[in-house]
Amino acid sequence: MKPVNVGICGLGTVGGGTFNVLQRNAAEIARRAGRGIEVGHIASRHINPACDVGDTPVTDDVFAVVNNPDIDIIVELIGGYTVAREVVMQAIANGKHVVTANKALIAVHGNEIFQAASDKGVMVAFEASVAGGIPIIKAIREGLAANQIDWVAGIINGTGNFILTEMREKGRTFDDVLAEAQALGYAEADPTFDVEGTDAAHKLTILASIAFGIPLQFDKAYTEGITRLTTADVNYAETLGYRIKHLGIARRTEQGVELRVHPTLIPADRLLANVNGVMNAVMVQGDAVGPTLYYGAGAGAEPTASAVVADICDVVRTLTSDPNNRVPHLAFQANALSDHPVLPVDEVDTAYYLRLQAQDQPGVLAKVATILSERGINIESIMQMEAEAQGGLVPMILLTHRVKEASMNVAIADIEDLEDIAGPIMRIRVEQLN
Amino acid sequence: MKPVNVGICGLGTVGGGTFNVLQRNAAEIARRAGRGIEVGHIASRHINPACDVGDTPVTDDVFAVVNNPDIDIIVELIGGYTVAREVVMQAIANGKHVVTANKALIAVHGNEIFQAASDKGVMVAFEASVAGGIPIIKAIREGLAANQIDWVAGIINGTGNFILTEMREKGRTFDDVLAEAQALGYAEADPTFDVEGTDAAHKLTILASIAFGIPLQFDKAYTEGITRLTTADVNYAETLGYRIKHLGIARRTEQGVELRVHPTLIPADRLLANVNGVMNAVMVQGDAVGPTLYYGAGAGAEPTASAVVADICDVVRTLTSDPNNRVPHLAFQANALSDHPVLPVDEVDTAYYLRLQAQDQPGVLAKVATILSERGINIESIMQMEAEAQGGLVPMILLTHRVKEASMNVAIADIEDLEDIAGPIMRIRVEQLN
Repeated sequence: MKPVNVGICGLGTVGGGTFNVLQRNAAEIARRAGRGIEVGHIASRHINPACDVGDTPVTDDVFAVVNNPDIDIIVELIGGYTVAREVVMQAIANGKHVVTANKALIAVHGNEIFQAASDKGVMVAFEASVAGGIPIIKAIREGLAANQIDWVAGIINGTGNFILTEMREKGRTFDDVLAEAQALGYAEADPTFDVEGTDAAHKLTILASIAFGIPLQFDKAYTEGITRLTTADVNYAETLGYRIKHLGIARRTEQGVELRVHPTLIPADRLLANVNGVMNAVMVQGDAVGPTLYYGAGAGAEPTASAVVADICDVVRTLTSDPNNRVPHLAFQANALSDHPVLPVDEVDTAYYLRLQAQDQPGVLAKVATILSERGINIESIMQMEAEAQGGLVPMILLTHRVKEASMNVAIADIEDLEDIAGPIMRIRVEQLN
Repeated sequence: MKPVNVGICGLGTVGGGTFNVLQRNAAEIARRAGRGIEVGHIASRHINPACDVGDTPVTDDVFAVVNNPDIDIIVELIGGYTVAREVVMQAIANGKHVVTANKALIAVHGNEIFQAASDKGVMVAFEASVAGGIPIIKAIREGLAANQIDWVAGIINGTGNFILTEMREKGRTFDDVLAEAQALGYAEADPTFDVEGTDAAHKLTILASIAFGIPLQFDKAYTEGITRLTTADVNYAETLGYRIKHLGIARRTEQGVELRVHPTLIPADRLLANVNGVMNAVMVQGDAVGPTLYYGAGAGAEPTASAVVADICDVVRTLTSDPNNRVPHLAFQANALSDHPVLPVDEVDTAYYLRLQAQDQPGVLAKVATILSERGINIESIMQMEAEAQGGLVPMILLTHRVKEASMNVAIADIEDLEDIAGPIMRIRVEQLN
C-alpha cells in the first residue's frame, strides 16, 4: 500500500523532532500503522541543524505545502494564531487531515476549526497541544469515556514547574531561576506565557472541554502566574506539609465549571506534589475510575513529536484499516509481529540486593567479596548489621552492580557453600528505572 | 439511531460495576459515543445485590446471551480460561464484537482469539485486563505509537502492593497482612495468583506484546512472588534508600525481550516507589517520549468497569461514526456539547493560605480572626513566626477551610485595612486533590 504523505509546516524544535522520529522509527511505526508514513514536503524559513532532510523538498512558502495535492496530512508546527490558523483552515478546505501541537490555536480558535473539519469530513488531531508526550487527551477522551469526570488538575507548564522546583529544593529566588531557565532554553526570551499562566490556561481550556463536553472558552479561564511567589511562601508551605505547584484546575460543580490556573498548595505526599523539574503530570478524577494520574515530559523536541506522530498514526489507521479493526489487537499489525525471542531469566541483566547470615568473625566478608569478584560481580555497597547479631550470626547486606543472572546464581551457590554462611541467601533484584 | 445492544456474561463484581456504570452514566456516555448503549441480556448464576437489573432479561445459560441475535457486543466478565474461552470464541463465530476484562484468557489464549476475530472482522477489546481503570493498553498501543518502547515496569497487582505497603509502613509480617487483605476482600481465599505473581505475569505478558509487537508468550514469563519477603528486608532496603515493590518488568534488549515478575528494590524517590496500597501504576520508557507513568485503581468494581465501558465506547464509535470522525474532536459529539457555564472565579470554592505582615503586639490575631469569622471563613491553622520578626512586623500564616472566593476577597480587603497589618496580603489557594 502506498505510503501516507505528510507535509510538515514549521521545522523548528518540534518540527525537527517530528521529522527525526518519523525517520528513525519508520519501520516500527509502519508495523503499527499498517502503512508507511513519509514526509513529502516541508515548509521552513530556516535550516534546522538537528535534521538531515535529505531529498525532501523544502520551501519557505507554507501554502505550497498546504496546497500540494500529493500531501494527505498537514502537520502544523508553526505556532501562534495567525499564519497557523490560515494554514489549518486552508488545509481543511483542501480536504486534508490536520495534526497540530498548537495549544493557543486550538484553545482560541478550536470551535471554528472543528466545525470546518466536520463539514469537510476531515480529522484535526491535537494530542501534542497539551502536556507534550503524555497521551492525556486520548486518555480522557477515550480511556475514561465511561466516567462523569469530576475534576482535572495538572502541572501543564514545564518552565513554571522547573522554577518552583528550584525555588523549593535550592532556596533560590524566582528571578534567579527564571534567568537560568532562559539560559538553558527551557523558558522563552519573553517568558510571559509561561510564568503568567497563559500557556497553562490554553491547555486547561482544552482539557476542560474534552472532560466535560463544553465548547472551548479560553476567554473565561481565570489565570494567575507565579511571579509573585517568594521563597518564604515556598518554605512556609513546606512547614505546613504542603508544596506549591502551578496548577491548572477544571472542576465540574452543579453551578458551573471552574476553570482556573494559579499557584496552589497541595499536600506534600500527593504524587502530583512530587512531580519535579520540567516534567508534567495531570490528575483526572472520574466517578467510576476514581483518581488517575498521567506523567511525562511536557515539552521538548522528541516528547512533543511523540504525540504528533501518534496523532499521525491515528489518522493513518483510520484512513487505511478495515473499519472493524482500525487498531490492531496487539498494537502492531498481525502480520508484522516480531519473532524477537523472550530471554530466559538466566540471560537477564540486573543488579542485586543480597542478605546473608554470616558468622561473626573476621575474614567472612573477604571470602564473599572474592567469590563475587571472581564472577565479575562488582559490589556497590555493604552493610554489616553488628547490632543485630543473633546466635553468633550477623546479617550482611550487599548491593551489587548489574550482572547476568546466571553468573549471580553460581556466585550465590558458592557463597552458600561457605562454612561461615548460615542458611540460604535472600536475593532481590534491584532496578534504577532510568 | 438504535441503541447498541450489549450482553453481559457474568454479573459478579466487575459485571455488576459495568451494569451500574452503564445505567448511571448513560446520558454522558451516549453524548460521547453518539449512540445509546443498552444492556439487553445478562447471564448470571447469582443475583448481584449491588445491581437493580429491572426488566433486563437474566439467564443462567451464558450461551443464550452469546447466541442472542439481538446482541451486538458480548462483554465477557466470567473469568478463567474454560467457559470464558468458549463464550468468546462462540461470540466471535457469531460475528459479535467482544469486550473482556480477562487477563488470564488473553495472556494464554489471546493469539488464537485474535486470529479468529481477524478472520471474522470483529473487535476484541481488553483494556480492563491490565491495571483495571488505567487506560494503559490504549496509552501504549495508540498514545505512544511513535516510539520504540525500551521498557515497561509496573505495579500491576493491587493485593501484592497493599501487602508490601503495610509491611513497610507498619512493620507487619507478610502472613499478618495477607490475612487482613483476605478479610477485607482485597485478596482471594486462594491468594496464590496474587502473591505468587501469576496475575501480574498475565498482565505483563499482554503489556509486552503491545509494547514490542511480539506474540503473547505467557509460558516464557519468569514469575517470582512476594511470599518470602521479610520485614527485615523491607527495612534494610529503606535504610539503603530503596523501597521493595512487586514489579512486572518487560525490557527490549538486542538479545531478546526480558519478561519477568519479581520483588524489586527501586530508589525511594521514584514516583513508582510512592504508589501505595491497592493502587497500580505502570512506567513506560519510549525512545522519543522518555519516561511516562500511568497511575490509578487496578481493581475493584467500578474502576474495572470504567475500562470495560471505555472499550464498549470504542467499539460503538467504530460501528457508528463517520469513519473520518470516529472520535469526536472534543470527546463529545459536536451536537451534544453542553452549555453548562464556566464559573467566574468569584464563585469558586477553595481553601486558602494567607501570609500577613502583622504588628508584633497583642490583639492582632483576634482582629484578623474576627473578620474571617464574620465572613463565615473557618481557620484551619495559624503560624506566627515570632523568630522572623523584622522592623516590628511578624509574618503570620493562616490556612483556612473552603470558602467562596468572593467572600475571601472581601475579608482580605478588610484585613488589609487594619492598622496593625502592613502591606498587601499574600493569598495562595489550597487544594487537597481528593
